Amino acid sequence: MTPATPATPATPAHPDDAGLLAPGWTGSPAAAATADGAFLRALLDAEAALTRAQESLGLTPEGAGAAVTRAAAGPYDVRSLAERARAGGNPVIPLVADLTAATGETFGPYVHRGATSQDIMDTATMLVAARALDLVLADLGRTERALAALAARHRDTPMAGRTLTQHAVPTTFGLKAAGWRSLVLDARDRATAVRDALPAQLGGAAGTLAAFGAYGAPDATALPAAYAGELGLRAPLLPWHTLRTPIADLAGCLASSAGALGKLAADVLTLSRTEIAEVAEGGGGGGSSAMPHKANPVRATLIAAAARRAPQLAAVLYGCLVAEDERPTGAWHAEWEPLRDLLRLVGGAARDAAELAEGLRVRPDAMRANLDLTHGLIVSERLSAELSSVLGRARAKELLTELAPRTTAEGRPLAELLSEEAELRGIDLGALTDPALYTGSAGILTDRALERR
Amino acid sequence: MTPATPATPATPAHPDDAGLLAPGWTGSPAAAATADGAFLRALLDAEAALTRAQESLGLTPEGAGAAVTRAAAGPYDVRSLAERARAGGNPVIPLVADLTAATGETFGPYVHRGATSQDIMDTATMLVAARALDLVLADLGRTERALAALAARHRDTPMAGRTLTQHAVPTTFGLKAAGWRSLVLDARDRATAVRDALPAQLGGAAGTLAAFGAYGAPDATALPAAYAGELGLRAPLLPWHTLRTPIADLAGCLASSAGALGKLAADVLTLSRTEIAEVAEGGGGGGSSAMPHKANPVRATLIAAAARRAPQLAAVLYGCLVAEDERPTGAWHAEWEPLRDLLRLVGGAARDAAELAEGLRVRPDAMRANLDLTHGLIVSERLSAELSSVLGRARAKELLTELAPRTTAEGRPLAELLSEEAELRGIDLGALTDPALYTGSAGILTDRALERR
Amino acid sequence: MTPATPATPATPAHPDDAGLLAPGWTGSPAAAATADGAFLRALLDAEAALTRAQESLGLTPEGAGAAVTRAAAGPYDVRSLAERARAGGNPVIPLVADLTAATGETFGPYVHRGATSQDIMDTATMLVAARALDLVLADLGRTERALAALAARHRDTPMAGRTLTQHAVPTTFGLKAAGWRSLVLDARDRATAVRDALPAQLGGAAGTLAAFGAYGAPDATALPAAYAGELGLRAPLLPWHTLRTPIADLAGCLASSAGALGKLAADVLTLSRTEIAEVAEGGGGGGSSAMPHKANPVRATLIAAAARRAPQLAAVLYGCLVAEDERPTGAWHAEWEPLRDLLRLVGGAARDAAELAEGLRVRPDAMRANLDLTHGLIVSERLSAELSSVLGRARAKELLTELAPRTTAEGRPLAELLSEEAELRGIDLGALTDPALYTGSAGILTDRALERR
Amino acid sequence: MTPATPATPATPAHPDDAGLLAPGWTGSPAAAATADGAFLRALLDAEAALTRAQESLGLTPEGAGAAVTRAAAGPYDVRSLAERARAGGNPVIPLVADLTAATGETFGPYVHRGATSQDIMDTATMLVAARALDLVLADLGRTERALAALAARHRDTPMAGRTLTQHAVPTTFGLKAAGWRSLVLDARDRATAVRDALPAQLGGAAGTLAAFGAYGAPDATALPAAYAGELGLRAPLLPWHTLRTPIADLAGCLASSAGALGKLAADVLTLSRTEIAEVAEGGGGGGSSAMPHKANPVRATLIAAAARRAPQLAAVLYGCLVAEDERPTGAWHAEWEPLRDLLRLVGGAARDAAELAEGLRVRPDAMRANLDLTHGLIVSERLSAELSSVLGRARAKELLTELAPRTTAEGRPLAELLSEEAELRGIDLGALTDPALYTGSAGILTDRALERR
Repeated sequence: MTPATPATPATPAHPDDAGLLAPGWTGSPAAAATADGAFLRALLDAEAALTRAQESLGLTPEGAGAAVTRAAAGPYDVRSLAERARAGGNPVIPLVADLTAATGETFGPYVHRGATSQDIMDTATMLVAARALDLVLADLGRTERALAALAARHRDTPMAGRTLTQHAVPTTFGLKAAGWRSLVLDARDRATAVRDALPAQLGGAAGTLAAFGAYGAPDATALPAAYAGELGLRAPLLPWHTLRTPIADLAGCLASSAGALGKLAADVLTLSRTEIAEVAEGGGGGGSSAMPHKANPVRATLIAAAARRAPQLAAVLYGCLVAEDERPTGAWHAEWEPLRDLLRLVGGAARDAAELAEGLRVRPDAMRANLDLTHGLIVSERLSAELSSVLGRARAKELLTELAPRTTAEGRPLAELLSEEAELRGIDLGALTDPALYTGSAGILTDRALERR
Repeated sequence: MTPATPATPATPAHPDDAGLLAPGWTGSPAAAATADGAFLRALLDAEAALTRAQESLGLTPEGAGAAVTRAAAGPYDVRSLAERARAGGNPVIPLVADLTAATGETFGPYVHRGATSQDIMDTATMLVAARALDLVLADLGRTERALAALAARHRDTPMAGRTLTQHAVPTTFGLKAAGWRSLVLDARDRATAVRDALPAQLGGAAGTLAAFGAYGAPDATALPAAYAGELGLRAPLLPWHTLRTPIADLAGCLASSAGALGKLAADVLTLSRTEIAEVAEGGGGGGSSAMPHKANPVRATLIAAAARRAPQLAAVLYGCLVAEDERPTGAWHAEWEPLRDLLRLVGGAARDAAELAEGLRVRPDAMRANLDLTHGLIVSERLSAELSSVLGRARAKELLTELAPRTTAEGRPLAELLSEEAELRGIDLGALTDPALYTGSAGILTDRALERR
Repeated sequence: MTPATPATPATPAHPDDAGLLAPGWTGSPAAAATADGAFLRALLDAEAALTRAQESLGLTPEGAGAAVTRAAAGPYDVRSLAERARAGGNPVIPLVADLTAATGETFGPYVHRGATSQDIMDTATMLVAARALDLVLADLGRTERALAALAARHRDTPMAGRTLTQHAVPTTFGLKAAGWRSLVLDARDRATAVRDALPAQLGGAAGTLAAFGAYGAPDATALPAAYAGELGLRAPLLPWHTLRTPIADLAGCLASSAGALGKLAADVLTLSRTEIAEVAEGGGGGGSSAMPHKANPVRATLIAAAARRAPQLAAVLYGCLVAEDERPTGAWHAEWEPLRDLLRLVGGAARDAAELAEGLRVRPDAMRANLDLTHGLIVSERLSAELSSVLGRARAKELLTELAPRTTAEGRPLAELLSEEAELRGIDLGALTDPALYTGSAGILTDRALERR
Repeated sequence: MTPATPATPATPAHPDDAGLLAPGWTGSPAAAATADGAFLRALLDAEAALTRAQESLGLTPEGAGAAVTRAAAGPYDVRSLAERARAGGNPVIPLVADLTAATGETFGPYVHRGATSQDIMDTATMLVAARALDLVLADLGRTERALAALAARHRDTPMAGRTLTQHAVPTTFGLKAAGWRSLVLDARDRATAVRDALPAQLGGAAGTLAAFGAYGAPDATALPAAYAGELGLRAPLLPWHTLRTPIADLAGCLASSAGALGKLAADVLTLSRTEIAEVAEGGGGGGSSAMPHKANPVRATLIAAAARRAPQLAAVLYGCLVAEDERPTGAWHAEWEPLRDLLRLVGGAARDAAELAEGLRVRPDAMRANLDLTHGLIVSERLSAELSSVLGRARAKELLTELAPRTTAEGRPLAELLSEEAELRGIDLGALTDPALYTGSAGILTDRALERR
């Protein structure tokens, strides 16, 4: 028997979503740029630009563009539009009705003339994407600058390099931060290229621009460029109602960005562990009312959460490339929310990453202490190499294989155990087993990575 | 150079989401049951139940439960909670502050006492899931009843069976509808089992219930059952902060439901094609202002869109099973929105499926006409079998292989071409090549499927 | 310009896949049960069972079943079948040709009679799934038994409970192991239910069983049950060519299993870190030639890798529920490799989990040492509760908020700092701040969890 | 009770995978280039190049490079390597052992010296990816050339434009083919850019190149470039053990390619339907033994199946960007099979697409006949526009709304019904309602699209 769960009220006090489940992006610039209101704004911008573009080519009476632009200033009722969108399956249909009414009898007929809903919806989506990506890029910029500063400052701060959870050989925090930054730069470069190529959409009912001809355009192919120009978007080579490369490109750059920030977050989370404690989020991290001592790495946690979701959202978008006919049944509609989710998640993660990078507290002392945890075993690779030239390869290996477990078991420094070997008299075992002196090319690599702009 | 896209206003007129991008679920019962307001309600229900449960075990002064329950009636400011959730990474932290203040000095200390944010968040999620699943189940019920009626009515309505896009052999619309229904029943059975097992969550900071002991409970393990009882949820065997089977079960039943409805939609979309036209959505489908003749299968389109997204949302949730420690960094936070999205998408799709099934217009004449498109070739399997007994297997195959292309090329019925063969005199070729007489066990299978309740 | 990468030889020395990229499942029992040879075996089993079932109902001459069964013993050339599968898009078509030839002239006509390729392919897939799941279940059984032993042995071994990477409050290793086990039991229960329901597939060209009638069956609906009986599979209520609940159910139970094992692995990986070192894989873990001191948690790593992939494989399968018509264009074909991959990944992960659990080395001393890392702050929750009754809630909070940072900064035990407070004279601060004495209901919960069988 | 399924033999006759479940890629050039043998070849190429590069910088005795290169010629036992890979979790560890032995005592010590397994594995993966992408690009080239020819030939072949399954307005097959081609060109451009940037991997144990210094390199940062040069790969700016942009870029371009080909396949599948029959695969399609009339669109089906899987494989790879530390526990290991799967699936799909495009049979007569199915309603958009100028907007709409259902119900041409309206005397209704005369800018757009190279 089903337990009797108290029913929810039919109409909750707050029927809209204000981001209660989304601390990762609520309140971020990208959130505002992708809210329903921002989409509505973009839809209206697209409609107004379409009429202005038609006027600019002499396809409407003078004043139509201005009239529609005025009417597009709004306000319009988002909730009503959302509900009326159900009948036809998209919000442009009711919006055109409202905008036409607001434009008035004279110029109303020039609203949306010759276009299909998808022309407006796709164009608005590109506008929203452009605006959101600009915000993402700004926060990726903040992030990379902060990471560059960390890398430069800690160019020579040694720390344990860890592979498969175990100390491997030393590295530096500078190289680590430079690596994070290089991922952020990769993300930035990809996002910039995609953002700059975002196209307007204009094709009419089935992508032939035929209606514009029926309404008098001598060469309708001039219209998409004029329209794109009004909006600051690229003119498309072809209508792309079912040629969804721009969506795929957005999916790719956003999933890459989420992953890049996710790597930074994963490392911060590991290094923040109570037992490792080599870094800490600034601002004290997130607290806990019941446990006054806690300082949780909340920024990194929320970035990590975003990075878990982005790949699957991108997968939905890649799947929607398979869009049959001249307008598909679902492949288009399934793009809307996931693309917005991706923009928001990455926008929120970029904000959190910027704050994280700018505020990160680095603890070289803890790094140094951890380097010594294995009593010198962390440089066993070096000893394998350098003792081979003294002892021969076989003997060096034999010796290290014997001493490694003793070091651990007895808690004695490897250098001390080695110094008991007669063959190694006269070798500076202290230097040879100092983790800080075995960071290889970390410094040079850091310098080189920082030259990238 | 980046084109200059007009900037979006910093604060859009509508900062919340009212479902503008979601015609598939906006305005559905499941939408209301999963809105931020519904989550807030569930969070408050969980907090109040916790205090009442503690009081029922004598762990609070008398009246604490009632006081918190009263204070939980609200209202609370969702947007403010959403924004303040950012600091600690979840909305329970600010909500506890507000609820404590509203409860007042006497009983305020008994708000959330001994619990961790995740206790409340997970419990609220289960409440929301239970309420939303009840609505899903109601619409699955409507859908299966409508499909049962279609299957019964069209038990013997022949139509083309299609494999890999090509006519294969005849089937019946009754069997098709019975198949759709069986998928819906599968979805219903799985969703019912999951819904009935949804557990409350209570473990305290790290799942040991230790704080309740510190606050005086002689056996804190009695508390989860009392708490679950207050809420109509199951008592958990263990705190499941990082043992996420309930989430995985929800993911599975929701993805299955979306897929079941998606199959129905895919078939309706195919059968609705202008060239096939064997079914049509009721209510005229969605219209087009520019093309007055169009009647789009909008319900099926929106269901199809939901079915494209659900598997990836489920994948996120399955991925979150890998939740390290006693509370993970991201694996928990990444569940919230995808689970809600799944509940909404399936809730909206179930609503659309119910309307679709109840309103579906079936056109037996078109089915019959399409059966004849291949001039009898659609029963070539039958002829292979039955002519073998007359002509021998080799000769039968040879004959059909010769006649099949002639039937197509000459547009003449296969029966007519066969009747020219001397060997086949006296065979009732009309009956043998009538598609309506080669529906096999479709009727019996339909009957059997309809016996399932 | 593209750099000139040396070309690969046209035919590599090893054209088949032997599992070089798959250390997670290569060589496991599940690998053998899902190899091409095992699928071929299952396809042949299905064909032979079909003829035997037809004979058992009197639909073939006596001896046909035995003849096909003999011919099905093979051998057949997998590579040749694989290559010839391309023409028609599935391997059954060439296999039927080969099996018919091997059966000989008399009984050859009874090979595959009345069936469609999908009948055989789906049935074979269910056979492979049944066999692989049996192996998975055996290894889940080994895993849960080993975990039960760990939980019992360490029922009272205190360790740090960790939330969001930070020490929260104490827990026990017993409760942790009991939690892992409960996930494994959840996975086992779901996999068992799915395994026991796996159905045979039989419907003929479009799911109507019509050809069996054309070949003389008075009631073709008796055949699927006879066929299923031959194979030890369930008889389906309806042909399920495009009603893919069995595939969805497999997807769900396998993704759940992967996630359950992934949680175990994630915890082992964290607890194995050089700085934490509370557990270690048995057998010394995986070594490194260059770094003799390393012992990598390889089993856990490979399980973790499987858990990263399983959700997306399940998503593909859920997506394939949307299978149009009576046989879809791609939705069926896209299932084959992902379902096998899932069976293998989970099979390999279960093997690794069994070894991991059986060999896990637990270090109570390290757990105890880590508990003390925060100098008592790990019990601050307890102190918040218990000092409130002495000092009042406000004063208790104030005191702890003041002392927490001092404890960390000065490295002095919290008990020591507290003992300087006059108000706390006479309280046994040692007991109150001993982490081992604040494990709450961990023991009782562990006992209760271990009662589950 | 579990039914007794006959057990599978412990060792199947064919323990390796020969592609039995993969008609989409088995036997393709990309299959050979990604087989275990090809990976083994690439691993050996990488090892040999590493020693040669070290020799070129004077870090080994003369002859070491040649000796390792000779030893790398093999043969090696893939199956044995695969099984031994389990201990350490990757196949490089046993391969180094075998290669060292084969190289002999003198030069054996210079095998793999200073490297980590991941250096070799990642580099080999890049080699395999480069080789496979070259094959993909060749087949994308074949595909786009065939599509260009189709687009040119059918520049003015009218056909129905279809939106949401319904006839919308006319388009041309030329524009459709040009659109397919533009997607293929997009895929080609992205794949080319990614292929040309594939980097070698070299960093040593934790990415600092430290061991090379220990073995005597004065500036170890010169080594990666020398190594990359030996292999025809790019020199990396930094070791990218956990900076996985190259993997993400591969994921993106492969998912985009799969989607581009999937769109082509989806359209071919729709247009191949028995009722539409506007195109057919060349070569008769895939046959059916039981149904001699069938010609299945098998190539398109297999491409569609690949397109269903690629997005989720890409999602796994994007997820693996979150690679903690200097080598992650699972995020690296989880890349191997999915990346290979993607390369194969896209390689197979590109092969099928080339064959599909080269062999596609186009049926202008069927297109024309389908255009007339709605008796002229397919140009209702045009009539809305053009009649408005004659009748006024309101009257035009009213008239069309009245006549549209009559056209359908009475089966009479819209032109005929319109000609009964007195107001429309003297208008050439035949021309106005001829679908072939309302293809808008399709021709110009096709020309423009074909200019792209």
